[in-house]
Amino acid sequence: MKPLKTLLLVTCCLTLAASHPRATPAQPVDQAVQRIRESAPYKQAAAFAESDYDRFVKELIALTEIPAPPFKEQARGKAYLEMLRQSGLSDVEMDAEGNVMGVRKGSGAGMVAVLAHLDTVFPEGTDVTVKRQGTRLAAPGIGDNTRGLALMLSVIRAMNAGKVVTANDVLFVGNVGEEGEGDLRGAKFLLKKGKYKDRIKQFIAIDGGEQGGITRGGVGSKRYRVTFKGPGGHSYGAFGLVNPAFAMGKAIDKFSRLQVPSNPRTTFNVGVVSGGTSVNAIPASVQMDVDLRSESCAELSKINDAFLSIVRQAVDDENSARSTREGKIEADPKLIGDRPCGETLETAPIIQLTTAVVKSFGLSPHYEISSTDSNVPMNMGIQAVTIGRGGVSGRAHAPDEWTDIDRKTAVQATQVAMAVIVAVAGQP
Amino acid sequence: MKPLKTLLLVTCCLTLAASHPRATPAQPVDQAVQRIRESAPYKQAAAFAESDYDRFVKELIALTEIPAPPFKEQARGKAYLEMLRQSGLSDVEMDAEGNVMGVRKGSGAGMVAVLAHLDTVFPEGTDVTVKRQGTRLAAPGIGDNTRGLALMLSVIRAMNAGKVVTANDVLFVGNVGEEGEGDLRGAKFLLKKGKYKDRIKQFIAIDGGEQGGITRGGVGSKRYRVTFKGPGGHSYGAFGLVNPAFAMGKAIDKFSRLQVPSNPRTTFNVGVVSGGTSVNAIPASVQMDVDLRSESCAELSKINDAFLSIVRQAVDDENSARSTREGKIEADPKLIGDRPCGETLETAPIIQLTTAVVKSFGLSPHYEISSTDSNVPMNMGIQAVTIGRGGVSGRAHAPDEWTDIDRKTAVQATQVAMAVIVAVAGQP
Repeated sequence: MKPLKTLLLVTCCLTLAASHPRATPAQPVDQAVQRIRESAPYKQAAAFAESDYDRFVKELIALTEIPAPPFKEQARGKAYLEMLRQSGLSDVEMDAEGNVMGVRKGSGAGMVAVLAHLDTVFPEGTDVTVKRQGTRLAAPGIGDNTRGLALMLSVIRAMNAGKVVTANDVLFVGNVGEEGEGDLRGAKFLLKKGKYKDRIKQFIAIDGGEQGGITRGGVGSKRYRVTFKGPGGHSYGAFGLVNPAFAMGKAIDKFSRLQVPSNPRTTFNVGVVSGGTSVNAIPASVQMDVDLRSESCAELSKINDAFLSIVRQAVDDENSARSTREGKIEADPKLIGDRPCGETLETAPIIQLTTAVVKSFGLSPHYEISSTDSNVPMNMGIQAVTIGRGGVSGRAHAPDEWTDIDRKTAVQATQVAMAVIVAVAGQP
Repeated sequence: MKPLKTLLLVTCCLTLAASHPRATPAQPVDQAVQRIRESAPYKQAAAFAESDYDRFVKELIALTEIPAPPFKEQARGKAYLEMLRQSGLSDVEMDAEGNVMGVRKGSGAGMVAVLAHLDTVFPEGTDVTVKRQGTRLAAPGIGDNTRGLALMLSVIRAMNAGKVVTANDVLFVGNVGEEGEGDLRGAKFLLKKGKYKDRIKQFIAIDGGEQGGITRGGVGSKRYRVTFKGPGGHSYGAFGLVNPAFAMGKAIDKFSRLQVPSNPRTTFNVGVVSGGTSVNAIPASVQMDVDLRSESCAELSKINDAFLSIVRQAVDDENSARSTREGKIEADPKLIGDRPCGETLETAPIIQLTTAVVKSFGLSPHYEISSTDSNVPMNMGIQAVTIGRGGVSGRAHAPDEWTDIDRKTAVQATQVAMAVIVAVAGQP
């Protein structure tokens, strides 16, 4: 990992603007990227990417039409496993969580993980037929993140065509559980339980939009389903007993009054409420789903503590306000989502190199803080970045999601991603 | 209506305890009741009731086994219509609301309505097969209020057998919509739109338990489904927009702090909450079902106004607390239940006579305030009482509802009800 060590020393001295990296004179990172792009293997790989366009589109459509609802990625996972095998990777396998992966050997001991997630947000039964209008393909999940999966296959084939050699092994992964209640389970398993957990030193997720956007911070989130329970009873006959809907109302009211910073961006939400059986019965149980997020680990921790304290206080208030002779109100905040917060410093080599690659293609790099699989490594102190899958896309998470496969942009996306991977994996 | 007028003057001077009418020396009402009970027609009718017991039981079982869910009383209504016809009433018919009824002519111009409701609380598909263990019959709805329906048929036959003559016409009604969301629609139609609406001067509902209980007050209730709507949005991306769950939480919190008197008993409840689609979306809509009740019309009006004001205030608070750039929170409190409050004074002839009848059978009369079809006439200023259907019953509104048909008690119940009806209808 010598080249990277050198770069680290150099880039520590760079100062980049938080959201728009400042244009600077050519620096060592830029020179390193330039060397890669001018190397014969990379050039041959980049040329191959041009010829691989039709296959990329074909695979994008084929993968999109294999449904991959949350927790039900298996069919797409098996198909992707076979495609990884055909791309010539070694050690192709599916792990116990459902991630599929294969290794492209390097010459060193380290390993870079490159991920694109298999899952979509769409439930079983969603029509995933791809509709084409010119260069615009529409289908649920086609942009987020099936395009990332298709791009990754094209990158592997191009690297092989150019016989590109890297210092570190590159582990290419189609992972499960990025969306919603999947709760990053694929990335968590990979880095905390999988067979490569101790070898992965850098982490690249292909899960952004256009390639100018470089995600270097992970918005952390905690999600709770809080159930308030009580003895229940007849609304008239048992009036005076504690009411869990009152306790929940008190909690929501106090929660709504929390003050949070806008920078680092910190947010809270009550998204779903339910409970009770009849207008004339005191409910035995009501519940609410709550979402807490922050760009900052410290702020997330602060709002999390405040929220749990509010719930306890609301329960105590209701138990003091009415009779508990038939039973008390109890609240059970169950953690239903836990996306770790974290960030990779702007000065970290993985960010510097990605920035240099983006600039070398004449694109405008800008940093983003988001919630992607990279949250997991960032939280663990592993250098991570989420890069774009390329192309203009829209309506992510909506049934009319679409992505534009304009040839030039699509080919460039493959070339950008490949350059980032090669730069981060280093050269022997 | 001379006898009643006389009684009114006399009974104005009586003072009865609110819940337990005080034992007093024999009064004109007692003497009037005694005259009825000692008359040859009444005695013959009472004797007939003894011989009618088996038929009463048979009809109770037959009627119980015809399902009569809320808003779906028609099958039972048609069967009961036929039974009313066979009992010898005139003008037997079903009105536009689904009430079935027939008239037993008197000699005067006035009319007493006697009601037993057809509907049960049980939904379609409930097993209504009657199970018998000794004198205990179990089936959903058998006590509340099928027993009232069966008793009414036995009363009509007994009056006919004894050739009992009354001053006022007696309108016997099997009515719809007493339970739950039925919202007293049968009684409302009868008194406000039906063909006899201007003739009914007294109102007797057979819908209580044992005959000691005399319901002379109607607990009024108002029920709302309040929908809070807003623009919705992503929990993170659109954070800062108004949230309808926050508005509802504020409303519930304030509502839970309302102070209400325990006498006259006044209650409030949030029974059901629902809304929102995802933990990570600001809901576009949430709702709650609210129940307000009071023994007192003034208190019901007061809490109703307070509640509606709280909802408005909570909406305003939320619209002030967060951004309305994508739209404001709006709340729509929809009245889904409206049971009028009301009472019949203890001194009213209908209450005095019922009390005297109950005492004449050696039973202990006590006054109750409840929610029955009598709420409607009480609210309109029409003298009304709800009397017992007799017998020991239990588990009303539960699938294992039961009623005991012990012969002596059952026959006495018919005799008590008949005496009340004859006393209230007066004699020519």
